[in-house]
Amino acid sequence: MRRSIATVCVSGTLDDKLTAASAAGFDGIELFENDLVVSPWSPAEIRSRCADLGLSIDLYQPFRDFEAVPAELLEANLRRAERTFDVMEALGTGTVLVCSSVSPAAVDDDGLAAEQLALLAGRAADRGIRIAYEALAWGRHVSTWDHAWRVVRAADHPALGLCLDSFHILSREISPAGIADITPGKIFFVQLADAPHLRMDVLQWSRHHRLFPGQGAFDLAGLITTILTSGYDGPLSLEVFNDVFRQADPARTAVDAMRSLIALEDRAGLRPLPPAPALRGHAFTEFAVDGGSSPRLREALRGLGFTHTGQHRTKPVELWEQSACRVVLNSAVTRPGAAISAFAVGTDDPAAALHRAEALRAPARVSEHGPRETSLASVTAPDGTEVFVTGPDPAWRADFLPTGDSPGAGIGLTVTDHIGLTQPFDHFDEAGLFYDSVLGLDRLATEEFAAPFGLMRSRALATAGREVRLALTVALLRRGEWAPGVPDPQHVAFATEDIVATAARVPRRLTIPDNYYADLAARFALPDAVVSTLRRHGILYDRDARGGELLHFYTPVHGGRVFFEIIERRAGYDGFGEVNAPVRMAAHRHLRLTGG
Amino acid sequence: MRRSIATVCVSGTLDDKLTAASAAGFDGIELFENDLVVSPWSPAEIRSRCADLGLSIDLYQPFRDFEAVPAELLEANLRRAERTFDVMEALGTGTVLVCSSVSPAAVDDDGLAAEQLALLAGRAADRGIRIAYEALAWGRHVSTWDHAWRVVRAADHPALGLCLDSFHILSREISPAGIADITPGKIFFVQLADAPHLRMDVLQWSRHHRLFPGQGAFDLAGLITTILTSGYDGPLSLEVFNDVFRQADPARTAVDAMRSLIALEDRAGLRPLPPAPALRGHAFTEFAVDGGSSPRLREALRGLGFTHTGQHRTKPVELWEQSACRVVLNSAVTRPGAAISAFAVGTDDPAAALHRAEALRAPARVSEHGPRETSLASVTAPDGTEVFVTGPDPAWRADFLPTGDSPGAGIGLTVTDHIGLTQPFDHFDEAGLFYDSVLGLDRLATEEFAAPFGLMRSRALATAGREVRLALTVALLRRGEWAPGVPDPQHVAFATEDIVATAARVPRRLTIPDNYYADLAARFALPDAVVSTLRRHGILYDRDARGGELLHFYTPVHGGRVFFEIIERRAGYDGFGEVNAPVRMAAHRHLRLTGG
Repeated sequence: MRRSIATVCVSGTLDDKLTAASAAGFDGIELFENDLVVSPWSPAEIRSRCADLGLSIDLYQPFRDFEAVPAELLEANLRRAERTFDVMEALGTGTVLVCSSVSPAAVDDDGLAAEQLALLAGRAADRGIRIAYEALAWGRHVSTWDHAWRVVRAADHPALGLCLDSFHILSREISPAGIADITPGKIFFVQLADAPHLRMDVLQWSRHHRLFPGQGAFDLAGLITTILTSGYDGPLSLEVFNDVFRQADPARTAVDAMRSLIALEDRAGLRPLPPAPALRGHAFTEFAVDGGSSPRLREALRGLGFTHTGQHRTKPVELWEQSACRVVLNSAVTRPGAAISAFAVGTDDPAAALHRAEALRAPARVSEHGPRETSLASVTAPDGTEVFVTGPDPAWRADFLPTGDSPGAGIGLTVTDHIGLTQPFDHFDEAGLFYDSVLGLDRLATEEFAAPFGLMRSRALATAGREVRLALTVALLRRGEWAPGVPDPQHVAFATEDIVATAARVPRRLTIPDNYYADLAARFALPDAVVSTLRRHGILYDRDARGGELLHFYTPVHGGRVFFEIIERRAGYDGFGEVNAPVRMAAHRHLRLTGG
Repeated sequence: MRRSIATVCVSGTLDDKLTAASAAGFDGIELFENDLVVSPWSPAEIRSRCADLGLSIDLYQPFRDFEAVPAELLEANLRRAERTFDVMEALGTGTVLVCSSVSPAAVDDDGLAAEQLALLAGRAADRGIRIAYEALAWGRHVSTWDHAWRVVRAADHPALGLCLDSFHILSREISPAGIADITPGKIFFVQLADAPHLRMDVLQWSRHHRLFPGQGAFDLAGLITTILTSGYDGPLSLEVFNDVFRQADPARTAVDAMRSLIALEDRAGLRPLPPAPALRGHAFTEFAVDGGSSPRLREALRGLGFTHTGQHRTKPVELWEQSACRVVLNSAVTRPGAAISAFAVGTDDPAAALHRAEALRAPARVSEHGPRETSLASVTAPDGTEVFVTGPDPAWRADFLPTGDSPGAGIGLTVTDHIGLTQPFDHFDEAGLFYDSVLGLDRLATEEFAAPFGLMRSRALATAGREVRLALTVALLRRGEWAPGVPDPQHVAFATEDIVATAARVPRRLTIPDNYYADLAARFALPDAVVSTLRRHGILYDRDARGGELLHFYTPVHGGRVFFEIIERRAGYDGFGEVNAPVRMAAHRHLRLTGG
């Protein structure tokens, strides 16, 4: 099936939008009238530009407030329609979207609506144009797909059919099941948008909060399956109104959009992708360090019981280990400070994983390597982090010469529990979709919390067996100049099975205020002895509704933006202790202000 | 009455918040528990810091999910309360906010709720503490003020009273009129927040969209009057949860908060301010220009029919005039490019206007002046623009020596219609309140529109007689790095009574795309001859529901961020043509890309 995208989905001028859609591999576009109106290009020039870019103009939209009006208004509306048909002729596009009327002038009369739409369809047919009638969820009289279908069926004109928009359908309570029974050929166009479940005015929900498929909560795969049952074979077209996408780089947004469509086609069984890899766990996390931050990171790792076990054969890259926890310090990168530059996950079939990534428009990159060095392929996540996929045989280890120091018992760290990455504001939903589709991670809960300098949103992703976990966070509003705090903080959390014993062996833990423990005692009715142990070690605590417990502590921030977390999960606690994040953030801030 | 502010209203750590509240002149604070929990200061240290800053701790909040629970949970809740009382004792604060329960464990039994609250009040009274019970608008069983009052009355304990929160009251349909009849002394605390009317989940509305009084749509003056009738004489305390305020400079936000409270006290007749000045019109607009932009601005003004009529006695400042339109070019400022640095409005009593501004925490600034120069006082608007208030006798004109050139007929510009200022993201609501309260402008409609690089919001303010108009705009989300366009564009709009004749005499008008005119013809069914005239001159058009018409055109952008608009209003058109703003923005962008 053809893939299309509405110009309203992405930011910029029409030129920016078309270039982005073409570069991302779309077959066609829906041209949003406002994008044409503000463009210096004539319709004929737009047609020619689209042809040059390999894009068809699949739909012109929207034409508003047409049907079920008194006679004198009908005449004016038909004149208005003829002007639209003029533009469409020059554009060379054959289908126009007519939304159900929201006008106070429209009357509640399906017969009249059908009659007038048939008249419009006749005028359109004379010019080789088709009318795709769509029920807006907030339409004055017609607001559900089944009502729109009754009107179209009553009008019974070959140039009149339906436009089905997943948002307008799934935001309402009417079941989409009956769509499968729509007369073959009468669905003229299908628009796709996902959205989170929100309890708000549906017009505002639609205007500001639509998302690309897979980024929200709608069952789009199910809807598409139903639609295809009716015999629809036209384009699948994305129509997403989203405040962030409207102001983000259109090239990026268009790739995100294409990825969402490819993943959806896979879920709906239309074009299967190579299956998502079964991930075995976190293999290593790589920090890019500069001259100033590398001694600090080494000291921090030693303080956490790590041993420098390997030295790269040709590059200034060190391997540090403790049990299955592995950290790579890479001084070959020329960025200031320290940052998580890459992480690696293990899988049985790295090649298949990379094929899937490629198919999802996440091109694999093979790292530079010299003689005797293992070729290791990676894909770049939306925040710039390189994601390596390694095989069961850790061939990459051969790149490191043993230092002779073997990892001792350490301090009880066992595996990497999760990696925490603060995301760039424009790319949070893109990141969720990337990890979900490329690595096959499940999206866990999205949480919102008040940090000292603004609201934050966090979203966790993990494998079903929790071998790999990621915690993404983003500011709810893009940060301004006031106290931005640690810029895009990143951290690695290591697991322990005895956090008190582990904590006792870590010299530099983040100091947690006494007030926190007084509050903890009140909230959870913990015995004094427990609270006192937690306080002594700076261990934070959370408990879920099923009695699962989280105990965790943090290190100070190293190299400007990275820190470590040590974590013990008890009785199946599956969260990330977001409730404690503001405490950690305030403590990091305090340490920074007091020169820690 | 005492003025208080909840720590949750402003950004930062507790230290930042207290410092800001004190500097803005608040008498006390409500301490939000989370701000204490994350603070490294003990309760005793917080008490001492507040005392040093001259702040009382008027309320500790919130204590949640207490009442109407089974016996075993009651015991746990009482233990939890004792812990809270411990903290309050150390803080030295005597009133705690208890919100109506949202817990599934709470039962719908007013008698039980009253009984348990009385028990809690008894425990509190033993420690010299009072319980202020508040109905959350989303409380499980108690969600309106009158229901909370029934429970408090039934409990009948001297240490139990009500906390009234304007949001929880005015977001619900229950009338607040009966508040006047509440037993004197039983209202323990009053929290104030404004909000826009939104159709959404009330919890989300409250958490994200509260505003300071006068920034939203609630009748707070009316509510306060009702509350005072009951004999309440405690603090008026602001409790505003707002996504933007949570991440803006707390010092600024606290002043904004204080201004809102002072203006509210005036509206409610509690502490009258000097009356708002009767404004006579725009006196002049001043542009700060550097060496590169000043020739461009001069050329632009000449192109618009202005004459350089005056030269400042001592500074590199020029006066340009046409009828009552006046522009000052100030080269004494050392900013790059061109910007609107100031504007002046005329009034009969500048001194009174400045007293009002001072009382509203907008300190007047007297410009530097040499011998023979008029002292001219100004206040600084939230975006940094200086606002001068001039008297009926334009004494400031004496600062300018006549050039000898008298303003000729010009091209028909008559007066300054409005000034358009794009606002910094953090200060849009602050700016609205500033102009509304300090200059006494009315807030007109707030509009939202899709610009080429993101959504925009605009808000107009004007005198009742429309002698002075301001149009403020802001990006709906803070802009990122992608195509920010013209940074914070600013413009002055001059009125004409014959826009076609005026346009014909302006050499450099912004070119408007043909597509716009094709669309215009279709939308408004304008005669071809009219459309053709508009197209020829690059004039944009709008028509309101009552038949009022706007015709306007623009110049290119000069000096990086400023442009001019020429405007003809017909038949009482009272808007600003926001529908055409995206066309203007795309045309400016196009011109910039094509080197215009």
